[in-house]
Amino acid sequence: MAVATQSLEELCINSIRFLAIEAVEKAKSGHPGLPMGAAPMAFVLWDKFLRVNPKNPKWFNRDRFVLSAGHGCMLQYALMYLTGFDSVTIEDIKQFRQWESKTPGHPENFETPGVEVTTGPLGQGICNAVGLAMAEAHLAAKFNKPDLTLVDHYTYVILGDGCNMEGVSGEACSLAGHLGLGKLIALYDDNHISIDGSTDIAFTEDVGKRFEAYGWHVQHVPDGDTNLEAIQQAIETAKAITDKPSLIKVTTTIGYGSPNKANTAGVHGAALGGDEIKLTRENLGWNYEPFEVPDDALSHMRKAVERGASLEAEWNEIWAQYKTKYADEAAEFDRMLSGRLPDGWDTVLPTYKPEDKALASRKHSENCLNALAPVLPELIGGSADLTHSNLTELKGFGDFQKGQYQNRNIRFGVREHGMGAICNGIALHGSGLIPYGATFLVFTDYMRAAIRLSALSRAGVIWVMTHDSIALGEDGPTHQPVETIASLRAIPQLTVIRPADGTETSGAYKVAIENARNHRPTLLALSRQSLPNLAGSSIDGVAKGAYAVVDCDSTPDIILIGTGSEVGLCVQAAEKLTAEGKKVRVVSMPAWDLFEAQDVAYKESVLPKAVTKRLIVEAGTSFGWCKYMGSEGDIISVDRFGASAPGGVCMEKFGFTVENVVTKAKALLG
Amino acid sequence: MAVATQSLEELCINSIRFLAIEAVEKAKSGHPGLPMGAAPMAFVLWDKFLRVNPKNPKWFNRDRFVLSAGHGCMLQYALMYLTGFDSVTIEDIKQFRQWESKTPGHPENFETPGVEVTTGPLGQGICNAVGLAMAEAHLAAKFNKPDLTLVDHYTYVILGDGCNMEGVSGEACSLAGHLGLGKLIALYDDNHISIDGSTDIAFTEDVGKRFEAYGWHVQHVPDGDTNLEAIQQAIETAKAITDKPSLIKVTTTIGYGSPNKANTAGVHGAALGGDEIKLTRENLGWNYEPFEVPDDALSHMRKAVERGASLEAEWNEIWAQYKTKYADEAAEFDRMLSGRLPDGWDTVLPTYKPEDKALASRKHSENCLNALAPVLPELIGGSADLTHSNLTELKGFGDFQKGQYQNRNIRFGVREHGMGAICNGIALHGSGLIPYGATFLVFTDYMRAAIRLSALSRAGVIWVMTHDSIALGEDGPTHQPVETIASLRAIPQLTVIRPADGTETSGAYKVAIENARNHRPTLLALSRQSLPNLAGSSIDGVAKGAYAVVDCDSTPDIILIGTGSEVGLCVQAAEKLTAEGKKVRVVSMPAWDLFEAQDVAYKESVLPKAVTKRLIVEAGTSFGWCKYMGSEGDIISVDRFGASAPGGVCMEKFGFTVENVVTKAKALLG
Repeated sequence: MAVATQSLEELCINSIRFLAIEAVEKAKSGHPGLPMGAAPMAFVLWDKFLRVNPKNPKWFNRDRFVLSAGHGCMLQYALMYLTGFDSVTIEDIKQFRQWESKTPGHPENFETPGVEVTTGPLGQGICNAVGLAMAEAHLAAKFNKPDLTLVDHYTYVILGDGCNMEGVSGEACSLAGHLGLGKLIALYDDNHISIDGSTDIAFTEDVGKRFEAYGWHVQHVPDGDTNLEAIQQAIETAKAITDKPSLIKVTTTIGYGSPNKANTAGVHGAALGGDEIKLTRENLGWNYEPFEVPDDALSHMRKAVERGASLEAEWNEIWAQYKTKYADEAAEFDRMLSGRLPDGWDTVLPTYKPEDKALASRKHSENCLNALAPVLPELIGGSADLTHSNLTELKGFGDFQKGQYQNRNIRFGVREHGMGAICNGIALHGSGLIPYGATFLVFTDYMRAAIRLSALSRAGVIWVMTHDSIALGEDGPTHQPVETIASLRAIPQLTVIRPADGTETSGAYKVAIENARNHRPTLLALSRQSLPNLAGSSIDGVAKGAYAVVDCDSTPDIILIGTGSEVGLCVQAAEKLTAEGKKVRVVSMPAWDLFEAQDVAYKESVLPKAVTKRLIVEAGTSFGWCKYMGSEGDIISVDRFGASAPGGVCMEKFGFTVENVVTKAKALLG
Repeated sequence: MAVATQSLEELCINSIRFLAIEAVEKAKSGHPGLPMGAAPMAFVLWDKFLRVNPKNPKWFNRDRFVLSAGHGCMLQYALMYLTGFDSVTIEDIKQFRQWESKTPGHPENFETPGVEVTTGPLGQGICNAVGLAMAEAHLAAKFNKPDLTLVDHYTYVILGDGCNMEGVSGEACSLAGHLGLGKLIALYDDNHISIDGSTDIAFTEDVGKRFEAYGWHVQHVPDGDTNLEAIQQAIETAKAITDKPSLIKVTTTIGYGSPNKANTAGVHGAALGGDEIKLTRENLGWNYEPFEVPDDALSHMRKAVERGASLEAEWNEIWAQYKTKYADEAAEFDRMLSGRLPDGWDTVLPTYKPEDKALASRKHSENCLNALAPVLPELIGGSADLTHSNLTELKGFGDFQKGQYQNRNIRFGVREHGMGAICNGIALHGSGLIPYGATFLVFTDYMRAAIRLSALSRAGVIWVMTHDSIALGEDGPTHQPVETIASLRAIPQLTVIRPADGTETSGAYKVAIENARNHRPTLLALSRQSLPNLAGSSIDGVAKGAYAVVDCDSTPDIILIGTGSEVGLCVQAAEKLTAEGKKVRVVSMPAWDLFEAQDVAYKESVLPKAVTKRLIVEAGTSFGWCKYMGSEGDIISVDRFGASAPGGVCMEKFGFTVENVVTKAKALLG
């Protein structure tokens, strides 16, 4: 396939290929196959369609591009360099996969401006893209006026066989079809190869038919290695389909151009090696030095800079008119984009006294969400088919449906993992939307990968998780969290809050919204059952992660530490112990990470080293609690799976009674 | 719809319905809707097709029945009672969802003989069923002879909209279609209702078309409330399709028979209430007392006892002939079913000396698997498209494919969660198969729900998880486990082992195989990088969970505790400290749960309370390690997300060097 002279397109496409080949070779690590095979479709997409401003990766109305097959990130880095993103220089390309480089081994939005989301774990990116498209649809419905189109951009994805095998992608794509997201366009790199070899080994389904079943518009470009026109035509057709998302199956050769390694699993995830690079150069007629790009190709690709500047300038014009003509909407738009919360937004969060009706914290959560909804129009979200159990409906704000994208209640269906990745996409759309996703706490197990990514990629999502312990009762051990909260606390960069009552739930939401503004996700663990309102609880206390809800005059004899539904037990036990002359402090510890972030003096004031007698009470695993137990500590915990029985029976059988707390405290006091 | 006289079938079907209605009512908890709506299809299945022996729920050649929509378990309990299973009496029905009853809120195989798998979390059951069908196909290919069919049974599933929305079900169903599992028959309870209401809200895909895309045979019974003949015909047709799994979409009315609540979300998961029960009785012409079953219905259903005894007797005949004619195969079949391991099976596991080549523990794992494969024909498994990274191929034993079911390497595709639930099904087939499933450790996040269920449901699966720390290098933070091992250690009833070298990897497999025989899953965390073989490592040490690999003559000044790849660092550091006159013990702690299971004396001997200076070294989160840290302890850990850089660079930057271990140890020693 040696060519004497190459067309301009071929020069550009091979520039992409060889940047990827050489970067992987230099790093002796990485995935050259996809960049080599998907370069033609990616070139057509970026050259002919993608409306971005390389010099302003945060321009609001940019198209979004997601490389769901994140291992192929040299494809994206090459395009970003070629089109003039400042965040990816040729030096960055040479530092691919090296310590502290801007070009890490999978795309990281928090590392490389211009990268929208963090991918790598397969299936996540396409789901993020569904979220990005939902965000666009929502904002368009909300802000666009008949005479001024402020919000109008596409979401493009490149995904491969791996993403298509992952169940999570099916969840989000089914929902995308139901929602008719017409501005979502996915290019499926159909190269018939995955790590284990040919897809004939394990993946022989009819992907196109499946996507038609989801309600997508499906096209096939059979000669995706060379037929640029067909790719372009397909994208144009896809754009013209306004009421369905589009899948374009583009058949390619993985590792295209490499005589010996093309179309093999070996070229997926290993450097080509010097010999094969030489042969590939000969094959593709490439004589440029490693990391050298022909001038013609570079200057052509760099037209994206001027194109982008011009697109942004046009949009600024519209924005200027919008600000004049629709001042109120413009003010809200601006506030959201800037990440500013409205003044006094948190004053709507209710606080409670002991005489107020005892409610479940999931019910308090519902009240908080509904108090916030009118004040924070950026709040949008829903449940994975447990709306009336999670209590997550924003009343009066309608269901987000096809043609009703201005509405704010998202019906995710029984698709926890898809919901998770979609919420990440909504948050990372970067427009100030604060998404929340809800299910039963135990089902965070289904979506843990997306929760982890919300933490890693700094997505300000609120995870609303209810039915948080054995107290949920009869649904039994498959539904009763035991180790769940501990396993979530262990995730870096994630705030986990288990509020004790109504006031603490308000405190949790205050933290969650502020966290969201600071690009940090928060997970709330909420009870199914009613919890008494405590006299000593406070919103500020929650923000500090742990604080005394009951205290004594001098150094305590013993500290009872509880979280969530168990704080009330501790308070009751403290009353009894105090009546017997003991000096008792009760500490509510709704959030470990927030407590750990306090200064040493505060932490010492709450849990003085000198007070070694401590009783911890939490209806969950003891795993990790040694951290706060002190040298003379004990714990009432659940270190086995639960049981199917009424919630009150479970709590009693597992030792969560005032009597047992008193007994164990006395044993410590000696 | 009141009927003056009911046919026998109607009597039986309504018996099922009302047992469910009354049990839920009495418990004031549960899900009556599905039992009421799916009773007709379930009756036809159990009455006309299901080959089981109610008096011997463990009869090898029984058909397997899985209620994937596990919340509808009163359907299954009612059928089990009616057909004469001793494990579900009428008293058990009355104790539905009560403390220590045999009828918990979701089906639990470890609680109720006759229940094959534990369901409840949606999507799991259908995937377990794929595993059960794979087990049948494998054993049939392995043991059947032209003249004697020893293995021949079907796997039937009832699943609903929820299971179909879950991505995990798509993974396993895609694989089932690829594998052509012709004896898997799924009845899809198509009632258009989920918890949030009509499926129109979020689930409008064409499910039948999607399953056709997977390569399933699809039928539709539109009048599943009343047309028993059509249901029967469809199942017969499905049975006749031998080269594809079958989906029968049976359109039903959830809560059928309840005048006000039928076809609503309200009847899905709440008791009907006395008034509505009365109306339902009138509607269906039911005058029997709660929990009373008409004699005609009961005696008809109880024919299953004689039928089952006869089926089992026929099979015993075949088995008797088989034992005579094919003595060797019969011996193996018998050994596997009994759960006996072959004598001396573990002697094939290699041990190593320090001079032996340093290999990654994933490579040692490959050697163990391949040493065991000829000795343990029950070992069968594979990777989620990472075969050559996880190193899980049983060489020479071929790929398990359509028409090649005797082979033992399963190609799961990029479907971690589906793989997990399938492996649970294979293990719970109860025939002695020991399945293993593999992926990168960080992707246990994708399949955590299935891992949890393997622990809860006592499925003897081996989870082979490689690339276990930041040392994997350039793939970066999306792939580098940090909190993963801790989060898995927290799961009850799961053994988690992180072996330090080749000998410890053998020790890990010894535990894993024995665990599997004892219905306990094991998860192995294995390195990508080479690890030196340690002089002090031992197979027995692993079984004890923690043990000294390096010791000193008297009480240590300090104990270095390491796991996996960090034990070697500790050993090297100990050499340096010892050379300076310190008394150092190095403890390898490959498995917390195994250590905790030892007696107090052993634990004290390894980690004496009096030795308070302890340095823990593990390339993962410090979360939970306080348990072993002592009062003067420190830890070298990773408490943030990783980074994309070569593995050696990562380890060095994060402090995992001999120098740093020595430095921190000296700081403790003062």
